[in-house]
Amino acid sequence: MINIAVLGYGTVGSGVVEVIENNRAEINKKAGEELNVRYILDLRDFPGDPYEHKVVHDVNIILEDPEVNIICETMGGISPAYEFSKKALLAGKSVCTSNKELVASHGPELLRLARENRCNYLFEASVGGGIPIIRPLNYSLTAEKIDAITGILNGTTNYILSKMAAEGADFAEVLKEAQDKGYAERNPEADVEGHDACRKIAILSSLMTGKNVRYEDIYTEGITRLTPADFAYAGAMGRSIKLLALSRNGEDGCYAMVAPFMIPVSHPLYSVNDVFNAVFVHGNMLGDSMYYGRGAGKLPTASAVVSDVVDCARHMGRTVMCFWDAEDVKLVSADKIRHRFFVRTRAELEQQAAEIFGAVDTVSAGIAGEYAFVTEKMTEKDFREKAERLDTVLSRIRMED
Amino acid sequence: MINIAVLGYGTVGSGVVEVIENNRAEINKKAGEELNVRYILDLRDFPGDPYEHKVVHDVNIILEDPEVNIICETMGGISPAYEFSKKALLAGKSVCTSNKELVASHGPELLRLARENRCNYLFEASVGGGIPIIRPLNYSLTAEKIDAITGILNGTTNYILSKMAAEGADFAEVLKEAQDKGYAERNPEADVEGHDACRKIAILSSLMTGKNVRYEDIYTEGITRLTPADFAYAGAMGRSIKLLALSRNGEDGCYAMVAPFMIPVSHPLYSVNDVFNAVFVHGNMLGDSMYYGRGAGKLPTASAVVSDVVDCARHMGRTVMCFWDAEDVKLVSADKIRHRFFVRTRAELEQQAAEIFGAVDTVSAGIAGEYAFVTEKMTEKDFREKAERLDTVLSRIRMED
Repeated sequence: MINIAVLGYGTVGSGVVEVIENNRAEINKKAGEELNVRYILDLRDFPGDPYEHKVVHDVNIILEDPEVNIICETMGGISPAYEFSKKALLAGKSVCTSNKELVASHGPELLRLARENRCNYLFEASVGGGIPIIRPLNYSLTAEKIDAITGILNGTTNYILSKMAAEGADFAEVLKEAQDKGYAERNPEADVEGHDACRKIAILSSLMTGKNVRYEDIYTEGITRLTPADFAYAGAMGRSIKLLALSRNGEDGCYAMVAPFMIPVSHPLYSVNDVFNAVFVHGNMLGDSMYYGRGAGKLPTASAVVSDVVDCARHMGRTVMCFWDAEDVKLVSADKIRHRFFVRTRAELEQQAAEIFGAVDTVSAGIAGEYAFVTEKMTEKDFREKAERLDTVLSRIRMED
Repeated sequence: MINIAVLGYGTVGSGVVEVIENNRAEINKKAGEELNVRYILDLRDFPGDPYEHKVVHDVNIILEDPEVNIICETMGGISPAYEFSKKALLAGKSVCTSNKELVASHGPELLRLARENRCNYLFEASVGGGIPIIRPLNYSLTAEKIDAITGILNGTTNYILSKMAAEGADFAEVLKEAQDKGYAERNPEADVEGHDACRKIAILSSLMTGKNVRYEDIYTEGITRLTPADFAYAGAMGRSIKLLALSRNGEDGCYAMVAPFMIPVSHPLYSVNDVFNAVFVHGNMLGDSMYYGRGAGKLPTASAVVSDVVDCARHMGRTVMCFWDAEDVKLVSADKIRHRFFVRTRAELEQQAAEIFGAVDTVSAGIAGEYAFVTEKMTEKDFREKAERLDTVLSRIRMED
């Protein structure tokens, strides 16, 4: 029997218990041993809950029990999740987590501790919720040089953008509706400002490069400034607007960015809507591949945590390979990244725009008083300098080809 | 150092050598040891080839060399691949294969031999070419009860169907073009009659159930009877026609089928075009997930074979888990499967169709002299009996919701 402790009995933590209970026979078969939830750590009591008697308030009960083999860290946040995870690994207990903040901040250190103590630190649930993406990168695409990852990695913003596109609604209005439905937090900043997607692409970029991509170094822009007019132009071009988290690892170095992009209908990410997430991966032998599914939600995320538990159970006493060194990657400055840019300005500035940007493609969406165009490919820095010379920029959105 | 032998120096076999050579540093790092191609088995000589001196004509040289650890079986066909694989496994050498015929026919036996001899029989490349799908099913979706798999599993037919849809062209015409481009074999039967997709869905269904789904038991229908008129009606309904390979594992048992289906634009498989493949998997906790990529081609398929080699290298002396028992699954008869059906008949039979099928949805694509409709959901058997009573059935295609 393999004993498990769940740290944090919130949405994901209670989902872990539910998944193990619902699919007990399947999971025990796949794990090769019976899994038993021995403890649940939470500050609260849960009177009436079928697992009430397993709830403890002191983490040391778990850390000092030599029969606990695997910890599911579903608390979120850095502290005390970081301290608990470190102590668990030092005690030789594997840790499976859904905590992207912690993985993005302390991944290499926790992976090293796992190696040194012959256990595992696994984090399938930290990116893409239930979508298998960490394990495919680590176990499946092992014959590839991966040079590009492009993801829709945040379900809340994708839900909002899908709604804005479908209904021509305002950002604020759709955000409120998403909050009422529980798809967005009361404080939505981490999602709508792109911070959540930034943590996730930092994790994926680290696995792509084998080194540490610091999330603090990634240029990140959210979706709060998008308007119905932007979607009208996107529609006129046969495009949708998505919050992309992307990174590239080429001969000129590595760069990463989180920002809204206009993507064409021919792009496989075009039709990823609502709370679905997808990760598009390019390898030098395989070409394009994509992984799609529910990027959030109690049971999908919990299912990913439990798949990590099964992996730990199959590798007791052995550390599975994960290449993510502590050495920081020096990212290429966002200034040097090249795109085409969509720009909206006032109608009377058409001539000025032509003088500044040269040859552009004009876009019409029947909006009075405006002139909109798409530039040629240029660096972020070039674009910024040119845009500063334009008297009015109503909005500007990057184009993905 | 881990020594490899490649059986069959054709498209995939030479791709395996090329992938190992191109990505040597990455692959050795991921494998944890240096991989070395020691032998290539082929009936032919390859004068001038950089690997010329590694070519042998007698498989026993490979089987009797105790320093060969891993065999890549990229020969295709049942015999002698079956005999060679058996002998290799009996000698404790792991086998990595792209051979779907062999895996579908003898999977459980070869897996058992691998277990008994503490080595591995891996077949990531046998389904979906370069798309990671076998390993995600075996290693990632381990907390799920998987109840449905729906795939576009054959690149040749998907290329033909994409072309027919885009150009309104005849099947025969597009097939010839595909043959000229090397996307279809001179003898295209295995692809266009659905036999290839049938082998692949048999493999996936076996992994879904953990038992053996015999490919011979799967109802299989190809794409040869589809006409431009069918695509015109599909377009009028906002649908595309895809050769789907599907299986379901529910309370009423398990069934599987390969046939052309009309699928709606909202379905994630709708936009899987050209030689791309995709596998749509439904689990009871995760809900929908999808895996997309190049379903064929030299380097993508070879990349999947090499990812199996890396997996073997990481598990020398240990057999990784794969649940596929020899016990045959008794599939539910195709007669009992329920769909809506699209039907084309002669214009003057509208009244007769109404009498036989009752309430139907009429479809118009502006084709003179025809009447077309979509039935309500009914079993295959019901539909067949009703269709026999209709004086003329110009075509009938299943609908996927």
